[in-house]
Amino acid sequence: MARSTVALRLDGLLERQWIVPAGESVSSGGRPAVAFAFNPEARIALAADLGAMHARVAVTNLAAGVLAERRTEIAIADGPEKVLGWLVDTFTELVSETGYTFDEVSGAGIGLPGPVSYATGRPVNPPIMPGWDGFDVSGWVGSRLGVRVKVDNDVNIMAIGEHWSTSPDTEHMIFVKIGTGIGSGLITEHRLHRGAQGAAGDIGHVRVPGEGADVVCPCGNSGCLEAIAGGGALAARLRESGLEARHAWDVVRHVRAAEHTAVALVRQAGREVGDVLASLVSFFNPNVIVIGGELADAGEHLLAGVRERVYSRSLPLATADLEVRVSRLGEQVGVIGAAVLVIEDALAPDTVDRSLA
Amino acid sequence: MARSTVALRLDGLLERQWIVPAGESVSSGGRPAVAFAFNPEARIALAADLGAMHARVAVTNLAAGVLAERRTEIAIADGPEKVLGWLVDTFTELVSETGYTFDEVSGAGIGLPGPVSYATGRPVNPPIMPGWDGFDVSGWVGSRLGVRVKVDNDVNIMAIGEHWSTSPDTEHMIFVKIGTGIGSGLITEHRLHRGAQGAAGDIGHVRVPGEGADVVCPCGNSGCLEAIAGGGALAARLRESGLEARHAWDVVRHVRAAEHTAVALVRQAGREVGDVLASLVSFFNPNVIVIGGELADAGEHLLAGVRERVYSRSLPLATADLEVRVSRLGEQVGVIGAAVLVIEDALAPDTVDRSLA
Repeated sequence: MARSTVALRLDGLLERQWIVPAGESVSSGGRPAVAFAFNPEARIALAADLGAMHARVAVTNLAAGVLAERRTEIAIADGPEKVLGWLVDTFTELVSETGYTFDEVSGAGIGLPGPVSYATGRPVNPPIMPGWDGFDVSGWVGSRLGVRVKVDNDVNIMAIGEHWSTSPDTEHMIFVKIGTGIGSGLITEHRLHRGAQGAAGDIGHVRVPGEGADVVCPCGNSGCLEAIAGGGALAARLRESGLEARHAWDVVRHVRAAEHTAVALVRQAGREVGDVLASLVSFFNPNVIVIGGELADAGEHLLAGVRERVYSRSLPLATADLEVRVSRLGEQVGVIGAAVLVIEDALAPDTVDRSLA
Repeated sequence: MARSTVALRLDGLLERQWIVPAGESVSSGGRPAVAFAFNPEARIALAADLGAMHARVAVTNLAAGVLAERRTEIAIADGPEKVLGWLVDTFTELVSETGYTFDEVSGAGIGLPGPVSYATGRPVNPPIMPGWDGFDVSGWVGSRLGVRVKVDNDVNIMAIGEHWSTSPDTEHMIFVKIGTGIGSGLITEHRLHRGAQGAAGDIGHVRVPGEGADVVCPCGNSGCLEAIAGGGALAARLRESGLEARHAWDVVRHVRAAEHTAVALVRQAGREVGDVLASLVSFFNPNVIVIGGELADAGEHLLAGVRERVYSRSLPLATADLEVRVSRLGEQVGVIGAAVLVIEDALAPDTVDRSLA
């Protein structure tokens, strides 16, 4: 770029406080060069991770640092207008808590517990979200808040959050969420792989080889991973053995109490997830597999089962340097990923150009 | 770029005949603009697809048009020096047949029937290539021919060839080779996905859910896709039923003769490949699955089995627009892909810059 163009753009960025002077750098002989640093406090991002029964909502700076946050029980089955109405109110409250104004909001990112068309921001036949099919989530929220809105599947935002925060140098990652259901998000060449219809990563209904082939799944097939190893299935089996368990979280509670049946169930669930992941490791050859979701809190018992099968069934070349670990962001991973959707959009050269024009 | 820089580069490209004048374009008011066209005849590419028992070697122009070609029986187990010595001789003969000289060779692309480290051009623990492990294929061939050499796995070059020639607009593709063994190559966002160790796509030893779980594979595990549905396994089962069959090709021959046992075997093999692909479709969400390799010549019988399972087991959203078809390039797909490796390298901006410097 010509020197005058650079100066003009620097002025624009400085005026909007996207960058701040960061002292003089070492002179290369001519006029002293001035260094600038990106200012993550210049704008804020709104982020939400909506699950079937609870939601986490946050306001972050442009480095995905959380400035204000709320965690609440919701019922996604209440339908889009009720849930999103609540979300709009919550975003508004949180922004005012931070002391920023809506003029300083770069956008909003929303994760939903079902398949989403990323291009249109609408859910597509989501099984556990009655009333949401085809609903214009980004339009509805965007028009009420006056900001750009990105919508994606909850596991996709988890993969984005984990990669961005903990492993930005990792080229290929599979993030597996094991909660009530099971899903995954794929990172390839540092970017989310959404696939042809945005459906990539949906491994909950992959057929598990071997054990449990006769377990019938609500989807109509049998032997689905989710029906065998999901938190809902495990809780049901604990109930059958006389323990009190309604959700994935109850399974973790029993494991932490060293309840024998629960420990054995979780380790076996890890093996079944591992059987499916073994195939995916041979096929996709990731650097890292990250296990997240509520059942990840069962920790080593789950991981041991996953590792046992992945290392015994995958191609040796593909597991030579493979890391299998739990999410380092834990429950915050989704909301951080939702913020990253906004941040990557806000810092894209096209967006910056538009904001300077 | 400045007008003078453009003029200088155009002169360089014209001098080397990379581009040729293509008549005057519509004037925009000033001096008449001159249009140039890329000249695929400016250089040639050397391409080889080496299998376990036969090889296809070609010289192509920079549009992957075949100028000279040879198909020969080889034994990859003879080791690298014998096989590559023959390859160097064959390349030399074919170049002279085309009337070009080695100064006009952009490079050589070689596909090998085993895992290859693309970065180093060396095979990594290839199971059916004794003596090749870690051999510097690109260095050995490159130093003898005086050209740049790219080496990759045979299924990867098939995926590249099919995508480049028949479906360049397809974003996500899985190319499945079903020959003696079974492997796949993945295209994502129009580019080959090699994975962390270059091992991506190696689905031959994925465990088939359901049928055949007790079939022992030479790899030491049981229930591997290749041991159940590969051409070698099918030929062995035809022999057991009294038919003469040594190779994948013999299986196809019996199918074409409408031999009942062979037709049933191939359709069942299609189902087993389909069971594995169903999981991969849910996980990867491709636009297209292409079936290649010798068994692809069994045509509709194989495809019917694949489709049956893919459509009944994959996520509906992921199969809504999924195309499942056989390779349109057939036996030439590998050698075309090997040429494309060279062409993409030769036409990369960096390479062109170097050649003009």
